[in-house]
Amino acid sequence: MKSNCYSLNELAQIVNGHTIGDGNVQVSGLASLEYAQAQQISFVNGEKYLDKAIQSKAGALIVTATLKDQLVHHQQFIVVDNPYLAFAQLTHHFERKFKLRGIEHTAQIADSAIIADNVYIGHFVVIGEHCVIGENTVIQSHVRLDDAVEIGQDSLIESHVFITAAAKLGDRVRIHANTVIGGEGFGFAPYQGQWHRIAQLGSVRIGNNVRIGSNCSIDRGALEDTIIEDGVILDNLVQIAHNVKVGANTAMAAKCGVAGSTTIGKNCIFAGAVGVVGHINICDNVTITGMSMVTKNILQPGSYSSGTAMSETAQWKKTVVRLRQLADVPLTKMVKQLDHMQARIESLETNFKLRK
Amino acid sequence: MKSNCYSLNELAQIVNGHTIGDGNVQVSGLASLEYAQAQQISFVNGEKYLDKAIQSKAGALIVTATLKDQLVHHQQFIVVDNPYLAFAQLTHHFERKFKLRGIEHTAQIADSAIIADNVYIGHFVVIGEHCVIGENTVIQSHVRLDDAVEIGQDSLIESHVFITAAAKLGDRVRIHANTVIGGEGFGFAPYQGQWHRIAQLGSVRIGNNVRIGSNCSIDRGALEDTIIEDGVILDNLVQIAHNVKVGANTAMAAKCGVAGSTTIGKNCIFAGAVGVVGHINICDNVTITGMSMVTKNILQPGSYSSGTAMSETAQWKKTVVRLRQLADVPLTKMVKQLDHMQARIESLETNFKLRK
Amino acid sequence: MKSNCYSLNELAQIVNGHTIGDGNVQVSGLASLEYAQAQQISFVNGEKYLDKAIQSKAGALIVTATLKDQLVHHQQFIVVDNPYLAFAQLTHHFERKFKLRGIEHTAQIADSAIIADNVYIGHFVVIGEHCVIGENTVIQSHVRLDDAVEIGQDSLIESHVFITAAAKLGDRVRIHANTVIGGEGFGFAPYQGQWHRIAQLGSVRIGNNVRIGSNCSIDRGALEDTIIEDGVILDNLVQIAHNVKVGANTAMAAKCGVAGSTTIGKNCIFAGAVGVVGHINICDNVTITGMSMVTKNILQPGSYSSGTAMSETAQWKKTVVRLRQLADVPLTKMVKQLDHMQARIESLETNFKLRK
Repeated sequence: MKSNCYSLNELAQIVNGHTIGDGNVQVSGLASLEYAQAQQISFVNGEKYLDKAIQSKAGALIVTATLKDQLVHHQQFIVVDNPYLAFAQLTHHFERKFKLRGIEHTAQIADSAIIADNVYIGHFVVIGEHCVIGENTVIQSHVRLDDAVEIGQDSLIESHVFITAAAKLGDRVRIHANTVIGGEGFGFAPYQGQWHRIAQLGSVRIGNNVRIGSNCSIDRGALEDTIIEDGVILDNLVQIAHNVKVGANTAMAAKCGVAGSTTIGKNCIFAGAVGVVGHINICDNVTITGMSMVTKNILQPGSYSSGTAMSETAQWKKTVVRLRQLADVPLTKMVKQLDHMQARIESLETNFKLRK
Repeated sequence: MKSNCYSLNELAQIVNGHTIGDGNVQVSGLASLEYAQAQQISFVNGEKYLDKAIQSKAGALIVTATLKDQLVHHQQFIVVDNPYLAFAQLTHHFERKFKLRGIEHTAQIADSAIIADNVYIGHFVVIGEHCVIGENTVIQSHVRLDDAVEIGQDSLIESHVFITAAAKLGDRVRIHANTVIGGEGFGFAPYQGQWHRIAQLGSVRIGNNVRIGSNCSIDRGALEDTIIEDGVILDNLVQIAHNVKVGANTAMAAKCGVAGSTTIGKNCIFAGAVGVVGHINICDNVTITGMSMVTKNILQPGSYSSGTAMSETAQWKKTVVRLRQLADVPLTKMVKQLDHMQARIESLETNFKLRK
Repeated sequence: MKSNCYSLNELAQIVNGHTIGDGNVQVSGLASLEYAQAQQISFVNGEKYLDKAIQSKAGALIVTATLKDQLVHHQQFIVVDNPYLAFAQLTHHFERKFKLRGIEHTAQIADSAIIADNVYIGHFVVIGEHCVIGENTVIQSHVRLDDAVEIGQDSLIESHVFITAAAKLGDRVRIHANTVIGGEGFGFAPYQGQWHRIAQLGSVRIGNNVRIGSNCSIDRGALEDTIIEDGVILDNLVQIAHNVKVGANTAMAAKCGVAGSTTIGKNCIFAGAVGVVGHINICDNVTITGMSMVTKNILQPGSYSSGTAMSETAQWKKTVVRLRQLADVPLTKMVKQLDHMQARIESLETNFKLRK
């Protein structure tokens, strides 16, 4: 994985930083502060990592100017404004690139599909009628693109992905393995005790620079389209139901689920396993903490939560009993009653003393 | 997607409704009230959509007789008893049908498999020994049916589905992409600090008219079979463990999970991400709200919930602190104590006045 | 499934038990107490199953000596110390074994891959450069092993699994269908309102005797490796993020999720849908009950929980209102205030009596 080799000066140039120490030192890899060896470079992401940085055996460190002054025992540095961003940039230079291009002979591609130059299409891929695939896009093995699916350029579709419903994907989109895009929305009309399937007629539109993890399900719309805007990043095992709209640059960690027809704003961050009911609106710049359930519109930016904190199971069981009682305990009335009673006791005490 | 075209009269006939206005108007598609254009038909699902209906540009509306009287600015209608059901029926007439039949030359089918006429079997499908596939069933690309799997007629098995454990599926079953039916149940006997695998010997039986979403896992039984009865509908990313029985016409939204050997009745509705522990019974006609945890038998029909409501994170943190205190707060005793003290204060006050 | 046939004596020998009754009785299958027929054997897993055992039609029962004495109407027994373990052992003798060996002609295997003898490699499998596959390992249809993946001996990789990031798997590993091992970790650096992808350079290391269910996502590490130690068992739809370490013999039920860089000890048990935040430590021998959220280090062995118990929705809504009030109710102060007021009332009452 770490076969590339750069001088410290070369790396500094990549991240627009400047070198301190011997700029000709060869760096063969990136590593965390704990595990870095002499030929590796690491990064210090703020004051709280100073102790680890001091003990690190990394041959060079990416730091801010302020952090640098506190690391007197290290000799080689790249000084930048944002070490974490510099680290993110460098990972791309140490990544093993996928360089294969061409179409494997086992792929089954409809004659009417339009495939740009310089793509890779892996073994056992199935591409339907009228699909369009942009330049430099990689379609890995066992992918199926159903009829009329369109994918932009510089994109990656990993193994076993299935894209259907004539979905349209932008440029620089990355869809990880075993994810389903455009699957049938969960729409059924109840009638006389049975569920009557509503054929789903909408599609899925995915913008540029979108990243979707593995084992996700992004359903097609019922009538209009499900929409994932530019720059959205979704982790693994995420469920996006029919007609959801996810605003630009919103991030969702693994196992989130959003029910049908909900609109989520831009620049939101959902931690893991957040659940959102259908038919609501969440505005821009909303953070939801892990495993929270969102059942109402959120109209103000901010951070929102639900759930209870963890405790030992024995203690938790007692809390659960109290919670059962709670419905019938008039809490705010009790507070007022207490204050009122206290006043009356004080009055009695005063009168009593006066009468002595 | 919307290439079919019908006259209003034709559509009215399909849904057993009657036309008001020009029955020869051509309708080229279905759309929601907000997005419908002049050549499209929409539906009004109750009084609460009247405002949207009034503003809709739809060329025709599906309504009840009562709703019709309140829509004086529209001219073309189909009048029915149940507009939502009529809409559901019409979606099937605007859906693009999958018409391919035959067996792709890349499919690998065991000689002993029995394949009915008029099926479609996609590229790179693998079908094992003694499988049986009914008439008019569609098996999409990359599906694997392990030995002795049986599927009825008019069914759909989407791409990358894996069915094993000699599972038996009924007629008109729809299994969406990347779902696993009959995977090994999670059965291990702990002994001397290690987990000893219990080979799973049961199968999976799936009734008629069952719908299972994408990325689901339905495990085979340990000894007897896991059972999904007729008319059950499951959304995406649902987990059904070994020996679960799901009763007829029960619906589960995305991300539900049911642990082993639990029996769920008929006509239940589970909202998203509901979790159910193993070895319990849930009776017919039970609704569970989203993200609830079910840890005990439910023996009465009704609606059940758990969890806490969302609030701003700062407020939520205060609630969490109170919840920690709650275990040691004798709530119901406090209520009684308060009432008792109030009585004593009143008695003191009365006596005190008498003594003045 | 139940085609094998053994005498009671043969089965007793397998589990190191002794036979009571006619040891030549032929047993054709295993079944639960409720469903067992005369030619089948069942097991009694403790006193609480005695009633079911008494009514069972099983031809033979696996029991402890103590249980045997209470089952006077049955005639054939295998007596052992641990009936559940004996049952687990016997399941392997009634399991239909997968006996195919060889490489299907449709598999695409890189020339540089090293494949041991006696393996099975299914249809449409893709194996990349420098992969290594150990003896007696079964790779089912449609699996893709990306370059440099290594799998030990006696392992099973089910259909549609994708393994990448040069992951290394031990011996006797079982990976169930549609799971992704080594997918890209969810690492992005936020900068100027956009997410900048951090290329993931770490791998995944999986020990011996590990079992991973279907539709799981186990991400590769960002810099160092994600680690699953020997004997770990994971159920379906489990998410393991980058750089998580799961200690030996830990078990996780379906739908658990662990966020990045968290370390979990040995011999832990997580019930279904447990969520764990990133960058924390959980020590050995910790049990977490279902659907709990773990947001802090756990440094003491024991059982931990979060969440609220289920109630009828109407009652639950009242509880939710109380919970909203709770943040502003000074619970512990109220308890003290009550006691203090009670003392003052008593003092007033005493004084009042004295003064009469």
